[in-house]
Amino acid sequence: MTSAVDAPTTFDLGPARALSCRECGHQVPLAAEFACAECFGPLEVSYEFGPITRASIEAGPKSIWRYRDLLPVPSDVDTHPNTQPGLTRLVRADRLGKALGIRDLWVKDDTGNPTHSFKDRVVAVALAAARQLGFKVLACPSTGNLANAVAAAAARAGWESVVLIPSSLERAKVLTTAVYDGALIAVDGNYDDVNRLATELASEHEDWAFVNVNVRPYYAEGSKTLGYEVAEQLGWRLPGQVVVPVASGSQLTKVDKGFRELGELGLVEPTPYRVFGAQATGCSPVATAFKDGQDVVRPVKPNTIARSLAIGAPADGPYVLDTVRRTGGAVEDVTDEEVVAAIRLLAKTEGIFAETAGGVTVATVKKLVESGKLDPDAETVLLITGDGLKTLDAIQDHVGPRATVPPSAAAVRAALDEPGR
Amino acid sequence: MTSAVDAPTTFDLGPARALSCRECGHQVPLAAEFACAECFGPLEVSYEFGPITRASIEAGPKSIWRYRDLLPVPSDVDTHPNTQPGLTRLVRADRLGKALGIRDLWVKDDTGNPTHSFKDRVVAVALAAARQLGFKVLACPSTGNLANAVAAAAARAGWESVVLIPSSLERAKVLTTAVYDGALIAVDGNYDDVNRLATELASEHEDWAFVNVNVRPYYAEGSKTLGYEVAEQLGWRLPGQVVVPVASGSQLTKVDKGFRELGELGLVEPTPYRVFGAQATGCSPVATAFKDGQDVVRPVKPNTIARSLAIGAPADGPYVLDTVRRTGGAVEDVTDEEVVAAIRLLAKTEGIFAETAGGVTVATVKKLVESGKLDPDAETVLLITGDGLKTLDAIQDHVGPRATVPPSAAAVRAALDEPGR
Repeated sequence: MTSAVDAPTTFDLGPARALSCRECGHQVPLAAEFACAECFGPLEVSYEFGPITRASIEAGPKSIWRYRDLLPVPSDVDTHPNTQPGLTRLVRADRLGKALGIRDLWVKDDTGNPTHSFKDRVVAVALAAARQLGFKVLACPSTGNLANAVAAAAARAGWESVVLIPSSLERAKVLTTAVYDGALIAVDGNYDDVNRLATELASEHEDWAFVNVNVRPYYAEGSKTLGYEVAEQLGWRLPGQVVVPVASGSQLTKVDKGFRELGELGLVEPTPYRVFGAQATGCSPVATAFKDGQDVVRPVKPNTIARSLAIGAPADGPYVLDTVRRTGGAVEDVTDEEVVAAIRLLAKTEGIFAETAGGVTVATVKKLVESGKLDPDAETVLLITGDGLKTLDAIQDHVGPRATVPPSAAAVRAALDEPGR
Repeated sequence: MTSAVDAPTTFDLGPARALSCRECGHQVPLAAEFACAECFGPLEVSYEFGPITRASIEAGPKSIWRYRDLLPVPSDVDTHPNTQPGLTRLVRADRLGKALGIRDLWVKDDTGNPTHSFKDRVVAVALAAARQLGFKVLACPSTGNLANAVAAAAARAGWESVVLIPSSLERAKVLTTAVYDGALIAVDGNYDDVNRLATELASEHEDWAFVNVNVRPYYAEGSKTLGYEVAEQLGWRLPGQVVVPVASGSQLTKVDKGFRELGELGLVEPTPYRVFGAQATGCSPVATAFKDGQDVVRPVKPNTIARSLAIGAPADGPYVLDTVRRTGGAVEDVTDEEVVAAIRLLAKTEGIFAETAGGVTVATVKKLVESGKLDPDAETVLLITGDGLKTLDAIQDHVGPRATVPPSAAAVRAALDEPGR
């Protein structure tokens, strides 16, 4: 992958200084590259941060751009039209905590983002970097949340978008992307076919930024903002435990990276924390490797209702294992039945309706407490990264009206089992 | 309607001092009343405000509770579990503005609320007041957004909820309320039947707060926060024009009330502004009365895809007419075809996917500009009060993939009409 056509050779990407190989450490200049030319390892953004204070962050925009000095974006990033994601609610979850046996529980509710998932964060950073790198079109292969986020962000910015989806995708997910009027292309094939096609198209189109392919190193950094916000919203403090759903694994490693950066920059006390990963049993390659004590993540064929986590060969799986082991956490997996029960538990106790990935996280917390791996007395944050409105099929056979009655007060009273009046 | 059982005779409802009849001015003590005993006019909360500054508001919570000193809620309102709605994005809409011919346009995007509509605001205020008034159960009749908001708010607070819906409601809307596990009762009847039933049940159950019936005066005040936020987010300034969708009409009158209060309290310069109302032609009793120069709003039988605005006999219709005429605005209505086109235009230009009510507002702005009623050079704010994810049926026959292709790069290129490579 090369940089975009006619792009300048140096880019204003704020504090970002280079791309570094996570495997061999080889550094290359900032560009639209994602794999190390030496060892094919994944490239990651490295930085040289300027002076950053809590006050400078708090005085910033009420979006992820308050952390712009910690991201690979120019300092004027918020002057370009963008979806302004982030700064979503961190809510105390005492009722859920009581149900799970955790004394001090918080839910980071990312359903409040513009298209109702954390993908708005990563796409906003990818778009900002892509603009600097000289790209003209925003693109992705996706089966859901990412498609929504890319199509919306491109529309708002006035960019063309190309979104590739499997043609078998549910109608609701097609509509919520198609409405933004980008080039939505349905491909007769499965997600793997669509993904391969994206890589091929990226190499052919020098001005197309596939957010999760050729600008992936920048895109991934957007997830650091989840870590920053949790710490800021706790009053500039790191939680003792954080539980993160694992798809590619990128989000978990970036939340950890965000926490570490805050400590290194003196923005929080670098207190110890433990990072936990959550997977669905039907797609649990990282949990399996963790439990088996392996360093290698063996690919699986996904079979779970948690489709937004259904990545059988997670690119950042080994780094998830590193992070979890280094911090003293764990990776656990839960069945689809547990996922549905957990979606309902979260909704019933906290009024938050999560997509299946959120059910995976809540159910995993429950299992980790029961097995003694999660400390019920430590302050714990769990991440809800997407909205139940997008995965209604997961609950449709499980919830419904308590009763259907004729239009009379007596009938309602009877349905509610009230004593006769 | 009387106050709840065993409730104290004075209530801590913050700066609220009494309920005043909007028709005859008769005042009654704060209680769960909604109609004047003298003339049957609607009761409204009146206040005695303490010292309030921009700084005291800005130092408050990042939710509607930063305005608690302007609402009928106790000062410790945010210490009780609640959904923390509000402080949603106000985004500059240059691309939409260009399409509509407006120079200086903003969109207040209330889809970022916890259950993705402005109803979270009014329900949160209703719940807080209901707690003070001694109620134990949160209830409503609803066909959609309100049902979601009541069920979620009650779940989070640990209250029982009773939500009455017509049994014909779409499955998706049933699921998004049922998931919170309150008492969701489907009634074999239309919305009018359900509404009548709610009034009957409210009179029978002294500890049930029907948010839009017996605690309506408090509930309605929650919409003032839309006005407060717009002004604060503009940098403590009132816009020249604001365009608001009209269902019962309450929201429009409360945005105006909020603007006036800010001016009276010296929090903004009391600059003139014009308020515009938006209705769907299939349910446009207020627009009709406005155009006919009438003071009386004649009820209609609704027939429009904008179901969240489909109130044929809008309780606050006459007050909408007062507000619009006093400020030099107008009420306009648009066809369902215009609504769909406007949903698509907003999505395509700003990456915001609104429900049908939002389509009504955008289409109305277009019509008002074209007819010269809206000044294209004045700073204009339009309110998007609900989310397109909840009204997918409105667009399902209008948007879709641009093409369905086999999994080859050549096929994608052909679908995109790219020159041969």
